[in-house]
Amino acid sequence: MKKWTRGELTEVFRSIVFRAYKTRVENFEKTKSGEFDIVRCANWVNVVALTTDNKMILVRQYRAGLDDITIETPAGGINFNEEPLLAAKRELEEETGYVSSEWSSLGYVDVNPAFMTNKCFFFLAKNCRNVDIQNFDPLEEIEIDLKDISDVKEMMSAQKITHSLTLISLYRFFSC
Amino acid sequence: MKKWTRGELTEVFRSIVFRAYKTRVENFEKTKSGEFDIVRCANWVNVVALTTDNKMILVRQYRAGLDDITIETPAGGINFNEEPLLAAKRELEEETGYVSSEWSSLGYVDVNPAFMTNKCFFFLAKNCRNVDIQNFDPLEEIEIDLKDISDVKEMMSAQKITHSLTLISLYRFFSC
Repeated sequence: MKKWTRGELTEVFRSIVFRAYKTRVENFEKTKSGEFDIVRCANWVNVVALTTDNKMILVRQYRAGLDDITIETPAGGINFNEEPLLAAKRELEEETGYVSSEWSSLGYVDVNPAFMTNKCFFFLAKNCRNVDIQNFDPLEEIEIDLKDISDVKEMMSAQKITHSLTLISLYRFFSC
Repeated sequence: MKKWTRGELTEVFRSIVFRAYKTRVENFEKTKSGEFDIVRCANWVNVVALTTDNKMILVRQYRAGLDDITIETPAGGINFNEEPLLAAKRELEEETGYVSSEWSSLGYVDVNPAFMTNKCFFFLAKNCRNVDIQNFDPLEEIEIDLKDISDVKEMMSAQKITHSLTLISLYRFFSC
């Protein structure tokens, strides 16, 4: 299988969290071609965070896409030119007030390579200490939920945790 | 934590694979409110498919978002009013030419509850038989890759499989 050719991206719509583009794609043999939608978001980070007494730090918040409250691992967007690890440290502290000096990578994923360009990077933060109050973005309101690791596993099985990227962070944590 | 209120969705952009909306959200205490982006896609399905001799059926294809070739579990969009299981059977046969009479659910996820409304449903299809030629959508070109299950596990660790939803289907398969 040979790589297709993707033409220039023409911006067709810009919102707060993404930009949409049209492009033309064509297969190597030039027998198939057509217009395609591309969505660009910032890259994201997602943190599996454990306290000094080995509780997992989860966050509850209202999510407008689902129109309901979810329970997730702390996560957020990477700022322009920001290193993924720095974004992970910033998001963990802003959303939960916790910091850690024991960070390791849990890899990355392509969020949806079919039409989205962005990646999500995963990190594990051990021995997190509460040093600060939470510091929310204007449209954030986050409740912290400290859970035993065995309870998190049960919540995954019972489909009480449903965010795809939160689940990947947890599957990677449990398989490492 | 109380649920926020989400106002009406006003369509602001329509593409082939998604529609974008603006809405207003407000927290329960009416102390925070603002405009929010919502993206609606079809719900999706994703199939972990094993042949009669226990190889996993993976698909290679060009993905315009990533602008590269990926290796994934067979997947696609659920048509309007289509049952997820029927969509899974249809997508598996269209993309690979394989059918199965042994289907079971591997649950669902919310793709991105922050701003996307859709779900992805996962299925396991055992003892798949090749009965047909592939039947592509106009912009599809798919190569089948039959892999030993142990090789798939290695490809996950080596980050040769990077599509978030493919990974969830595989984590669920390996943990069931």
